[in-house]
Amino acid sequence: MAYNKKAAEDYAAKNNIPAFKGVFANSPQLEDIATKQKRKLKSSLEDVIKSSGLKNGGTISFHHAFREGDKVVLQVVKKLAEMGFKDLTIAPSSLLNCHDGLLEFIKSGVIAKIFTSGLRGELGDAISKGIMNTPVQIHSHGGRVHLIQTGEISIDVAFLGVSSSDEFGNANGSHGELSCGSLGYAKVDAAYARYVVVLTQDIVDFPNYPASLSQDQVDAVVQVDEVGDPSLISVGAARLTKNPRDLLLARIAASVIENSGYFKSGFSLQTGSGGAATATTIFLGEKMVEKNIKASFALGGVTGSIVDLLKKGMIEAIADVQSFDVDAAQSLRDNPAHTEISANEYANPSSKGAYVDRIDTVLLSALEVDTDFNVNVLTGSDGVLRGASGGHCDVAAAANLTVIVTPLLRARMPCIVECVNTVVTPGKTVDVVVTDHGIAVNPNNVDLKKRLVDARLPVTTIEELQKKAILLAGKPDPIQYTDKVVAVVRYRDGSVMDIVRQVAS
Amino acid sequence: MAYNKKAAEDYAAKNNIPAFKGVFANSPQLEDIATKQKRKLKSSLEDVIKSSGLKNGGTISFHHAFREGDKVVLQVVKKLAEMGFKDLTIAPSSLLNCHDGLLEFIKSGVIAKIFTSGLRGELGDAISKGIMNTPVQIHSHGGRVHLIQTGEISIDVAFLGVSSSDEFGNANGSHGELSCGSLGYAKVDAAYARYVVVLTQDIVDFPNYPASLSQDQVDAVVQVDEVGDPSLISVGAARLTKNPRDLLLARIAASVIENSGYFKSGFSLQTGSGGAATATTIFLGEKMVEKNIKASFALGGVTGSIVDLLKKGMIEAIADVQSFDVDAAQSLRDNPAHTEISANEYANPSSKGAYVDRIDTVLLSALEVDTDFNVNVLTGSDGVLRGASGGHCDVAAAANLTVIVTPLLRARMPCIVECVNTVVTPGKTVDVVVTDHGIAVNPNNVDLKKRLVDARLPVTTIEELQKKAILLAGKPDPIQYTDKVVAVVRYRDGSVMDIVRQVAS
Repeated sequence: MAYNKKAAEDYAAKNNIPAFKGVFANSPQLEDIATKQKRKLKSSLEDVIKSSGLKNGGTISFHHAFREGDKVVLQVVKKLAEMGFKDLTIAPSSLLNCHDGLLEFIKSGVIAKIFTSGLRGELGDAISKGIMNTPVQIHSHGGRVHLIQTGEISIDVAFLGVSSSDEFGNANGSHGELSCGSLGYAKVDAAYARYVVVLTQDIVDFPNYPASLSQDQVDAVVQVDEVGDPSLISVGAARLTKNPRDLLLARIAASVIENSGYFKSGFSLQTGSGGAATATTIFLGEKMVEKNIKASFALGGVTGSIVDLLKKGMIEAIADVQSFDVDAAQSLRDNPAHTEISANEYANPSSKGAYVDRIDTVLLSALEVDTDFNVNVLTGSDGVLRGASGGHCDVAAAANLTVIVTPLLRARMPCIVECVNTVVTPGKTVDVVVTDHGIAVNPNNVDLKKRLVDARLPVTTIEELQKKAILLAGKPDPIQYTDKVVAVVRYRDGSVMDIVRQVAS
Repeated sequence: MAYNKKAAEDYAAKNNIPAFKGVFANSPQLEDIATKQKRKLKSSLEDVIKSSGLKNGGTISFHHAFREGDKVVLQVVKKLAEMGFKDLTIAPSSLLNCHDGLLEFIKSGVIAKIFTSGLRGELGDAISKGIMNTPVQIHSHGGRVHLIQTGEISIDVAFLGVSSSDEFGNANGSHGELSCGSLGYAKVDAAYARYVVVLTQDIVDFPNYPASLSQDQVDAVVQVDEVGDPSLISVGAARLTKNPRDLLLARIAASVIENSGYFKSGFSLQTGSGGAATATTIFLGEKMVEKNIKASFALGGVTGSIVDLLKKGMIEAIADVQSFDVDAAQSLRDNPAHTEISANEYANPSSKGAYVDRIDTVLLSALEVDTDFNVNVLTGSDGVLRGASGGHCDVAAAANLTVIVTPLLRARMPCIVECVNTVVTPGKTVDVVVTDHGIAVNPNNVDLKKRLVDARLPVTTIEELQKKAILLAGKPDPIQYTDKVVAVVRYRDGSVMDIVRQVAS
């Protein structure tokens, strides 16, 4: 007696569990020693697309870690067009100026629908002028994960460019010649897409580590000539801007944080990118050194200016969803205290815990702020799509102190207005607006106003700032729109916050 | 004109998407600054259990990284018993001798069903004697993930002991005083359980890193006096055994691998734990140094003997699902080439890619091997449950060369038998059996037999070994069983491989 084959089969049948049908019955991938380890490696993009099972009307996704240097989106969409695909939904984590080439494929019907955090350039222009039949869905970085988890964005195939991968799909953006740093957005696509493709120039020996994307998420690996140009990622080097207005804004913003009540050891910060933000980080860093105030962690969107503070020991750790420059990418690779986080960990309001929930002070920019403190980071003063939701509303909602930094005027157009063209971040989540003509504190934050006044900072009201803008620039003519909706602004919880109409030509 | 509140609401209604209902409508956790960061920290185990929503008949899970040092399972089950819970299913990744105390709670009806990789000690005895109404489901390490993914194991609450966590649930086993090393099994529970609890002695400043378990997976954190005793993890230190039979088996096993055809630069290996396995690793390491053959990676179940080879540069990387001793845990913490992998990455046959698929040579032990090369690692020669499925059938199915090492006799009972008591690993996936009385090669591997014969290794047949065992030990009396099924052996794909019957008392 012994091996109870018959009894096992009986038990299986009675309990509605499959009986054993052989070692390879459910693991055909193991049957052939010669191919089992090579099975994911595809010979070309076309080969990958065929293997993916993508159909007309399907949804494809991309990440935007290479920012203006991205070479994956157009490469893939061109190939899909060549192969005759139609009516696709594209769901990149964001789109930038380098994606203007998509216009051609919208016109030809390859792309029928877009989910994205942002739209700019000729693409933003054309969409604002009504080129698409279906409105673009604009989401925040956290909100994108929410829409993926609820299934509204249901990704059939994710095409993820990386700087290094092994043939089994263990991939990262921090090693290899063309490093982009954190793959924080791509991590979500890798976790949720039905079919996950890794594209890379650099196929390295197995096992590649760290595995930002893991072999148990990746279906196919393909070598391509180029995934991106890291030199075009940078949106503001760690050096100090020479723009006097940015320097002024940065000095005030740093003083606001210093006197906000949150500037004490163990505080946490997010400062974002751009000239004023980098300058604020540098000025704030000087105050941190001077007063020996160490931050527990910095979050972002990480630049070299934050990395400098980590190196100086003034920040204990960095949580990095996107590396904004080479310094950040290098630090992510080399410093264990600089860790890579996914967009779900970063900012998804329906995750079990987002890093934004832990932020004391955040510095954010704006295209417009209105007298209800609502912020527009999406449409220009002409009503045209030229920005991105990004993590703006995510971190504003969650941070203890949200500081918006904006010049009063930009190209002679008011940035403080009676009513923003487009609401991306609700005023309730904004604490203070710093301009080059004074500071306005949200009336719901009485303590903060007192602190800033006591610190002799130039506190005024948002209404005064709005009036001053009109005084200096005159009242702009109202933008002319048609009734057509060209974009829908989704709040981080997926709800419809605002719509963007077609601009009248 | 500007903010299109009414138009946004209309669009939402027409498209069946929620309209914006306020910043905190779907994020109530953010409304209170005072509690938003502390919201996961619970005051006691009882508090956690109440928060978890666990009900009678629910399923709870645990990991076994602390092995014989685990102090979480009994701590939690005792508390659940005190609180009056009944009819629970427990689904730990494995159970060991230290879990004998569960018997009391099976008798009292707190525990009604068990999924586990292994059963030993008094618990295994009692279950073999028929104490439970429902058969225990025995799964492999990879098969457990498969059963979780198919929903057969549907974890309501995972109780995961870790050596360090912050208050938001970023946790690992590699830092802190009571380090257990890799949390490879726990990672799966954290990913799939409805409610995830982290238990730790050591609550550290936010953000804790590396985050083997992440805040976006963890619902609650509770500080407890003890989660485990790392000194009881070790199952075989890196030093060489003095047992002459183990040394003999190890010498032969190392020679088998050396002459198998797979021993060349870039090969990959898994050697497991125990005296003979550690000795084999050491002997094989000597051959690697001598011939300058470097392995691409080692997988496991990692011991100090493997870590030594990493340090010497003879292994390029280690993929660690479970750290078997302090040396392995330290190496995981300090060496970037020693990485932590989940059980899904390790061995799940239905994952998109398992490390076992990449293994050239694996060394495994056995309680019994039969003349069809089937292996029993679960029941003793008395038919009683006293072992574990572990990763045995997973890696045997996937590896290119599966070497089973076993003495011919153990305590005067044959280990090579006509038919094993219980089939855990099918003979089709076994290439060679090494005993202290000769080597048997699976007839389906003709090339291997030729290579080993050419190398003048003591090759015989499995039938000869079986006969010799009888000659030396006599034919054992057949085990007496009743008809009752006490355990069901599930193959890695979830199918029923074998059943274990109640032993007649």
